[in-house]
Amino acid sequence: INSKLPEVSTTIFTVMSKMANQYGAINLSQGFPNFEASPKLIDLVTQGMQKGYNQYAPMPGLLPLREVISEKTNSLYSSNYHPETEVTITSGATQAIFTIIAAFINPGDEVVIFKPAYDSYEPSIELFGGTIVPIQLKTPDFTVDWQEVEEKITSKTKMVIINTPHNPSGSVLSGQDMLQLEKLLKNTDIILLSDEVYEHIIFDGREHQSAARYPGLAERAFITASFGKTFHTTGWKMGYCMAPASLMTEFRKVHQFNVFCSNHPMQYALAKYLKTPENYLLLPNFYQEKRDLFLSMIKDSRFTFTPAAGTYFQLLKYTEITDEGDVAFAERLTKEHKIASIPVSVFNLNQKDDKVLRFCFAKTDDTLKKAAEILCGI
Amino acid sequence: INSKLPEVSTTIFTVMSKMANQYGAINLSQGFPNFEASPKLIDLVTQGMQKGYNQYAPMPGLLPLREVISEKTNSLYSSNYHPETEVTITSGATQAIFTIIAAFINPGDEVVIFKPAYDSYEPSIELFGGTIVPIQLKTPDFTVDWQEVEEKITSKTKMVIINTPHNPSGSVLSGQDMLQLEKLLKNTDIILLSDEVYEHIIFDGREHQSAARYPGLAERAFITASFGKTFHTTGWKMGYCMAPASLMTEFRKVHQFNVFCSNHPMQYALAKYLKTPENYLLLPNFYQEKRDLFLSMIKDSRFTFTPAAGTYFQLLKYTEITDEGDVAFAERLTKEHKIASIPVSVFNLNQKDDKVLRFCFAKTDDTLKKAAEILCGI
Ligand SMILES: CSCCC(=O)C(=O)O
Ligand SMILES: CSCCC(=O)C(=O)O
Repeated sequence: INSKLPEVSTTIFTVMSKMANQYGAINLSQGFPNFEASPKLIDLVTQGMQKGYNQYAPMPGLLPLREVISEKTNSLYSSNYHPETEVTITSGATQAIFTIIAAFINPGDEVVIFKPAYDSYEPSIELFGGTIVPIQLKTPDFTVDWQEVEEKITSKTKMVIINTPHNPSGSVLSGQDMLQLEKLLKNTDIILLSDEVYEHIIFDGREHQSAARYPGLAERAFITASFGKTFHTTGWKMGYCMAPASLMTEFRKVHQFNVFCSNHPMQYALAKYLKTPENYLLLPNFYQEKRDLFLSMIKDSRFTFTPAAGTYFQLLKYTEITDEGDVAFAERLTKEHKIASIPVSVFNLNQKDDKVLRFCFAKTDDTLKKAAEILCGI
Repeated sequence: INSKLPEVSTTIFTVMSKMANQYGAINLSQGFPNFEASPKLIDLVTQGMQKGYNQYAPMPGLLPLREVISEKTNSLYSSNYHPETEVTITSGATQAIFTIIAAFINPGDEVVIFKPAYDSYEPSIELFGGTIVPIQLKTPDFTVDWQEVEEKITSKTKMVIINTPHNPSGSVLSGQDMLQLEKLLKNTDIILLSDEVYEHIIFDGREHQSAARYPGLAERAFITASFGKTFHTTGWKMGYCMAPASLMTEFRKVHQFNVFCSNHPMQYALAKYLKTPENYLLLPNFYQEKRDLFLSMIKDSRFTFTPAAGTYFQLLKYTEITDEGDVAFAERLTKEHKIASIPVSVFNLNQKDDKVLRFCFAKTDDTLKKAAEILCGI
């Protein structure tokens, strides 16, 4: 068999979660909550099934769901998305990202991405023959050097992928960053893929800088979003994307032959649940408390950190603890200390190892306490 | 925007269902039941959500579900699929088909398909730069000319796609067909994609000829299957595929970056529900009664037919009624006579128009009666 992706192996998230289960470790690796989704939301899915929403949804998604999404987005970000033609429901944000790349990337097209990067971007680009143009974010705060971006943009650049709040670093792009990007992309045909799955998980009063806020970005952007991240239901595989109609038309051509449509009873439930803004507006506070609890308990440990500005991931630096590579250390922590994390080097340019691990704090306070105890003992 | 699929428009299924809704027509176009899924199965999903199966499933699927699938398949078809490495749960069979093509088709690869063909195959192949080698099934019974297949197979042939029971024709491949195919593929590296989503919907005592039964096919085959078709839940978007481990490894490399995994609570429910073989073994009888009811009521109409051997689709020929092209006639039937169907020419080689429409009989007896009344009045 001639592999199309000879260098790709099983995603680190699967590897670490499997290892965590195998060794009975606390699993702060893969990004998902270990507390429950809202019983109200669950009841709404049951209601959807009982009311008969069990056959194909419309290909782009249930219209009432698309309507409440565009209302929410347009009111939060002063944008102007039309529910019929500019919003599509997907089987998770990952499926949206894959489908966007599928719909636009041709062999030889260059795609600028920022490293460390979520691990689905690169193999997806590679699968369609695209050339990855990676730019390493600057330490210590994972900031973008826009000068470098300008230098890396060529006539072959087809797409730029940004991700804010940023996984794995927990950093966020500022309004200034977005204006810089807007300037760089002006008068080009470059498509922007703005991965905003953590849009509602942002801390210390920061405002999420959605690409939707910037007309010069929105006119060329796909924005991806995740119900799994926002409503503690990563296993439902529900997300969506938004884009100007002309771009969305191309997206749907591929979407219809990839998954055709997404889960119908869950769309019914989400359409109702999304009508209550508290269901997502309370999220920054909820996760900030978790972040603060976790960090307060490990502040005297030998790990060092800058508090995450967004996402439910916290990076911890372990330079003072061991010289081990981060992959080896993450494995040893899982097997011997019973705590699983993600070694950040796997997302870095050339697997650069800064001795940093990523810990997911979307966990019950009890789990966070147990995790902190372990980390303080290392 | 430079479209990657300039000739692709919205799938006929979306177009006809939309038209049916718009004109208040009985919708026998897109293939889905208009009766309810089992309350037991629905309760199991609720149970799954309440038990906390709301976060990511394992990437290849929930193991108990993969186990019951391999037991079922191995016992029905004397095959030997291993649940860990040779079964993957997908977000519908369409996602499996797209991902199989994504994982193996390179620019210039030839893919043999049989026309009329389900409309996702061709654009998916095209998206990866593959060359479609179409073979028209022979009228009147949609049989395969294996001589022609032999002639069309070249050193560039990477994949052959079969579909039995066959959508849209309702024909099935025989044991003889499978042996012919086995002989043709022997000593080649050709991958077989065997789309068997209607495996349990087969009539008049016929036995489903799964590729899994034929070692010379199984060793090179992906078999795709659909819980949506089998359990009347097309809107849950749940399916799976099976293949030898070496092929499945490549599939999962792409799957993990396309959807990552499929809906977790529904996997929980299906694992339990699939344990009762009656839940699928009664299906041939159930749908045969519907087929027979429908056909008995239109036998004196001006439409002519050969009863479907499988699937929940019945082709009706209308040569005696009008000279209209089938697309125009299907539209007029929807708008004026309030009954929607699928014009078969859209699936044919060069849109060959044989004056045949496809009607879905996965409908309540009441709907079938109303539909038959309309058809008898035409
Ligand atoms: C699809 S598994 C990965 C989940 C996630 O977003 C992460 O851990 O970064
Ligand atoms: C994905 S919509 C098409 C449903 C179907 O299988 C058919 O109507 O043929």
